[in-house]
Amino acid sequence: MNTHDLTRQLQEKNDSKIVMLVADGLGGLPIKPGGNTELETAKTPNLDALAVQGVQGLSHPIAPGITPGSGPGHLGLFGYDPVENLIGRGALESVGIGFKLTPQDVAARGNWCTIDADGNISDRRASRIPTEESAPLAERLRDIAIPGVQLFVEPVKEHRFVVIFRGEGLGGNLPDTDPQATGVPPLEPAGEDDASKKTAGLVREFIGQAREMLEDEPKANGLTLRGFACSPDIPQFEEVFGLRAAAIAVYPMYKGLASLVGMDVVGSATTLSEQMDVLEEAWHDYDFFFVHFKYTDSTGEDGNFEAKVKRIEELDAMIPRMTGLNPTVLLVTGDHSTPCALESHSWHPVPTLLVSAHCRPDANTSFGESQAVVGGLGQFEAKYMMVLAMANAGRLGKFGA
Amino acid sequence: MNTHDLTRQLQEKNDSKIVMLVADGLGGLPIKPGGNTELETAKTPNLDALAVQGVQGLSHPIAPGITPGSGPGHLGLFGYDPVENLIGRGALESVGIGFKLTPQDVAARGNWCTIDADGNISDRRASRIPTEESAPLAERLRDIAIPGVQLFVEPVKEHRFVVIFRGEGLGGNLPDTDPQATGVPPLEPAGEDDASKKTAGLVREFIGQAREMLEDEPKANGLTLRGFACSPDIPQFEEVFGLRAAAIAVYPMYKGLASLVGMDVVGSATTLSEQMDVLEEAWHDYDFFFVHFKYTDSTGEDGNFEAKVKRIEELDAMIPRMTGLNPTVLLVTGDHSTPCALESHSWHPVPTLLVSAHCRPDANTSFGESQAVVGGLGQFEAKYMMVLAMANAGRLGKFGA
Repeated sequence: MNTHDLTRQLQEKNDSKIVMLVADGLGGLPIKPGGNTELETAKTPNLDALAVQGVQGLSHPIAPGITPGSGPGHLGLFGYDPVENLIGRGALESVGIGFKLTPQDVAARGNWCTIDADGNISDRRASRIPTEESAPLAERLRDIAIPGVQLFVEPVKEHRFVVIFRGEGLGGNLPDTDPQATGVPPLEPAGEDDASKKTAGLVREFIGQAREMLEDEPKANGLTLRGFACSPDIPQFEEVFGLRAAAIAVYPMYKGLASLVGMDVVGSATTLSEQMDVLEEAWHDYDFFFVHFKYTDSTGEDGNFEAKVKRIEELDAMIPRMTGLNPTVLLVTGDHSTPCALESHSWHPVPTLLVSAHCRPDANTSFGESQAVVGGLGQFEAKYMMVLAMANAGRLGKFGA
Repeated sequence: MNTHDLTRQLQEKNDSKIVMLVADGLGGLPIKPGGNTELETAKTPNLDALAVQGVQGLSHPIAPGITPGSGPGHLGLFGYDPVENLIGRGALESVGIGFKLTPQDVAARGNWCTIDADGNISDRRASRIPTEESAPLAERLRDIAIPGVQLFVEPVKEHRFVVIFRGEGLGGNLPDTDPQATGVPPLEPAGEDDASKKTAGLVREFIGQAREMLEDEPKANGLTLRGFACSPDIPQFEEVFGLRAAAIAVYPMYKGLASLVGMDVVGSATTLSEQMDVLEEAWHDYDFFFVHFKYTDSTGEDGNFEAKVKRIEELDAMIPRMTGLNPTVLLVTGDHSTPCALESHSWHPVPTLLVSAHCRPDANTSFGESQAVVGGLGQFEAKYMMVLAMANAGRLGKFGA
């Protein structure tokens, strides 16, 4: 179902406030048979109090069995169909370093590589050149000038960087120039349609000038480009939902994802407590607040069960600052599960809690996966969470007479 | 959602083994108010032990309220959208008698009928001619020769048979020649497009020659053809899921359905115990095993509650031979419900149990409909079962970065 057709048609304005607290990778697994998950193990008196008032369920970021990356995981939470609204690799990498893409941009991931005297790649990652050596190279390439196009070259880490071509009528359908092999030269840039052929011409010129600048470099005397992608053409959050939205995140990736859908990235918090300060300060200027907490994911990726439990408790301790603002709707959820037992993102549906004066509370008295299984929201696709939030905020009119 | 786009893109190889045990018509109903279903009544210590380790849910073969036939029921379990992937009646009838269709085939169901002196149908089922009389007639029609086409005529039962036209460029869009009435002649074969007009010409020729051969028959001196259908154009299982699949079934229909999606039909077991022998023998040659058990359906169709309970207990007794092989993922499910109370297939969702090291176990301690209602898999469309199986087997990569 295209929920956007409905939210565009039915959206109404009022003074309600919606807070979506995203604990990245929140869902988990027991680490021993019959045991509790991370969320069930954590002492969460504040979340449990909300569980009494609210209604729980399990959110499928994409579909049963599908493990999402951070991009599709967040797009689902923001109310977008994550399969229909794809973010290309180059675009996501740019977003991840905080680069603000425009509709005129084609972004690509770059790899520094070593090229031998015959023009063949001898090392696809330039001996894994350290960041302190590679970052200045990216800065040096900023001197490249190509008429009719604006260029941005941004260091990432070690052998990786991103390059963005900004200009009119540029297409993003170009295969990688990385041949995925050594002993052969990089592939020639090629475009799969007229607009992308135009981009390919610029890419050729860029690579040519770069090779001249780099020719005396011992390791990184060449480069390959991968994951060419236009800035994704995503409908903007305010148009779709009628909500002025603020994103309060610490990490560039999540600020970037929020800004792709048109949220204002507010504040420059570096801790959850500072994020709460920003939330309080921005409270009267926005209708919707996306608050992102990273550490439930990173501790999951580390496989550190105790650390994830502690991070959940840290989050719980901050709940009173959110409820203190009296949000009309408070959602606590995650973009996917990251069970310590798997040390990675997973397909398991995400425990989700919705609290509002007009939700239909279920019988649960604590927040956790086992409770969510029998919760009143049932199991649902993440993209419906925004619809539920709007309904509970009184911001959706009746469909049909 | 087109799950095949996702499984094609995300599939990964490893050494995992997936067993899907299909107890045909597994789901049931209580026969008295407040009573238990067949599955809940059966003593199933082995399935109950799996229920402790695993996660349950309810599978909707098509959609809530829709009762499937065996064809769509199994296609859903095999991970296909059963509404998008239709198997025409003629094709299903052919598959059901173990005939292996090719892409050049158009199949139709035939009825022997009695035609009077004026050329009108006097009995649409040839006095329900017994099989021992009708089977030789089908064999006699094998002498029909039509240039440019290969013909197969296969007896089914009583007044029914199937005919398959094999040739290049034959279409399957032909209305039935059965007028569904007596006192009128059979309808002339007609094609709805060019390719089907070509088929219609062959059908006319076939019927003409048949009428001559049959003119002295007292009962079955004519025939009508129904349910014309090309061999369905179904994406093949290994391409879609990256799994080498073996089907271990006793009845031709289920072997045929498995072979339509490209599974290898292995062994020639006639009992569940022999099916387990085949499973053990084939274990190292395949990634995926479809094991079909018919008798939960046939006892349901008979309305024999006690017999269905016994059949479920028989199945339970065989579980240790499956778990003894240490499958990475074991699924126990059905293609639909066949409640004894209804003596037919039904729309009730099917209790489903998934066991793997990485599932998120629910609180259930026995396998049954009431437990599945509060199970961790929730209620889901059958086509997602393959996605879940692949995820639990570590065979699906992450969607998006």
